[in-house]
Amino acid sequence: MSLDNVRAIVFDVFGTVVDWRTSVAAEAREVAAGLGVEDLNGEAFANAWRAGYQPAMSAVREGQRPFTPLDTLHRERLDEIASEFGLDGLDDAARDDFTKAWHRLDPWSDSVAGLNRLKQRYIIGTLSNGGVMLLANMAKRAGLPWDCILSSDLFKAYKPQPETYLGALELLGDGEPGSVMLLAAHNGDLAHARSHGMATAFVARPTEYGPDQVEDQKAEEDWDLIGDTFEDIAEQLGL
Amino acid sequence: MSLDNVRAIVFDVFGTVVDWRTSVAAEAREVAAGLGVEDLNGEAFANAWRAGYQPAMSAVREGQRPFTPLDTLHRERLDEIASEFGLDGLDDAARDDFTKAWHRLDPWSDSVAGLNRLKQRYIIGTLSNGGVMLLANMAKRAGLPWDCILSSDLFKAYKPQPETYLGALELLGDGEPGSVMLLAAHNGDLAHARSHGMATAFVARPTEYGPDQVEDQKAEEDWDLIGDTFEDIAEQLGL
Repeated sequence: MSLDNVRAIVFDVFGTVVDWRTSVAAEAREVAAGLGVEDLNGEAFANAWRAGYQPAMSAVREGQRPFTPLDTLHRERLDEIASEFGLDGLDDAARDDFTKAWHRLDPWSDSVAGLNRLKQRYIIGTLSNGGVMLLANMAKRAGLPWDCILSSDLFKAYKPQPETYLGALELLGDGEPGSVMLLAAHNGDLAHARSHGMATAFVARPTEYGPDQVEDQKAEEDWDLIGDTFEDIAEQLGL
Repeated sequence: MSLDNVRAIVFDVFGTVVDWRTSVAAEAREVAAGLGVEDLNGEAFANAWRAGYQPAMSAVREGQRPFTPLDTLHRERLDEIASEFGLDGLDDAARDDFTKAWHRLDPWSDSVAGLNRLKQRYIIGTLSNGGVMLLANMAKRAGLPWDCILSSDLFKAYKPQPETYLGALELLGDGEPGSVMLLAAHNGDLAHARSHGMATAFVARPTEYGPDQVEDQKAEEDWDLIGDTFEDIAEQLGL
C-alpha cells in the first residue's frame, strides 16, 4: 500500500509504546514490600495480572457483559490474583491505587523520541484498549506527545472489535485507503487493521512478556513498514 | 460547588480558546485577493460564515438530518455565501482548502500560557463542536497542549445536546459532582454544563464577534470561577 495517503498514525499502547511488564513489576514489588511481603516475583505478578486481560475483554466482546472500562477489568483481575501472591492485606483504597499502576507505565526507550519525530508530519494518536483517563494520565507522566486519544471507552468496544479500527478511520481518515496507519508490536492487531483498510507498521517488542516470549518476535506479514524502533520508522518515512 | 473534586477541565474552543473571527477574516482577505477581489470585508465575511453555524447544527440536533461533521457544515455555508462576497470564482479544491481555515485559528493571547499552567494539575481537553481532526490540526499549529480531544464527531452530537456534556463526565469524571469543569466564554454553554453536574468557569471574550458584540460580555450566573483570562483562572486555582 502506498504511504502517500497517510495523514494520521495511531498506536497500540500496551507493549508497543510502553513496557507494562517492567513498570507493573516494580510497583508490585513496592506494594508487596509495604505489606511485609519481601519475596514477590514482580514480573510473574505482572504477567499474571496481564493474563486476565484478554479473557476479561472477551466477555465484553462476546456480549456476555456490557462494555466495562479497563480500569474495572484490571481491578477485578487484581482481586483474583492478590491472595495467590500474598497480597490479601491490601484494602480497597490500596487496590484502587495499585490498579492505577496501569496509568503509570514507562515507555520503551525509543518511544518518546520516535513519536516526536512522527508528530512533525502526522497526527499521532492512540488506538488502545485503555480508557481516555488511563491514556491521558500515562501520556502526561511519560511525556507521550499525542495529538489525540482514541480509546476503548470512546468506542465502547475492545480491539479487535471492528468498531475500533473503523472508528479511527472515520475520525481521522479522509475516506481513502491507507489514510490512517496503525503501528503495533502485535501481528494480530495489524492483520485486523489491514482488513479494514488501514496502513500498517510493525515494530517488534520481543521481551514485552519477558525473556521467554515466543509470539510477535518478528513481522509475520508484509506490513507496509517494518522497523526496529519508532525512530527507525520515522527514518523510513524521511523524518 | 467545591472545586476540590475537579480532575479534568474541558474547554469550549471556538471563541473561548481561539479567535475565529480575526483568523478567518485574514484568510478570507488572502483568498479574495487571489481572485482579484481587493475590497473584501474579512470580518463581515467571517461573521457571515459563522452565522450559518447554529442553524446548520440545529438541523442535526433536531433530527432533520443525520449527524454531519462540522467540516461539511462549514463547506456548505461557504457555498451559500461565496457569491455574495464575490468569491464565485473559487473552485472545489480551493473551497475545500478555504474550509480548513477553521483548522487554522489563532489562540487568544492568554490561551497557551494559561493552558500550560492548568495542565500542570488537571487533565485538559476540548469539549467542542469541532471534529477530532479539526481540533488536532488546530492544536498542533497553535501549540494548544491538550491531554485529550473531545469533539462532536466522537459523540455524534453537537452542544448543547446532553450527549456531549454527559460524554465528557463519563470519560473524564469519577462519578462525583464537579469532577469535570467546563471553561467557556458563553453563558449558555455553562448553564447546560451545570445542569448536568459539571463545575463551571467563565472567561469573557467580549470581542469574539467584533466590537459591537452584545452577548456574553460578562458572567450572567454565579459560575464557580470567573476570570479575565485563562491565566487568571490558573491563578485562582493556585497554579
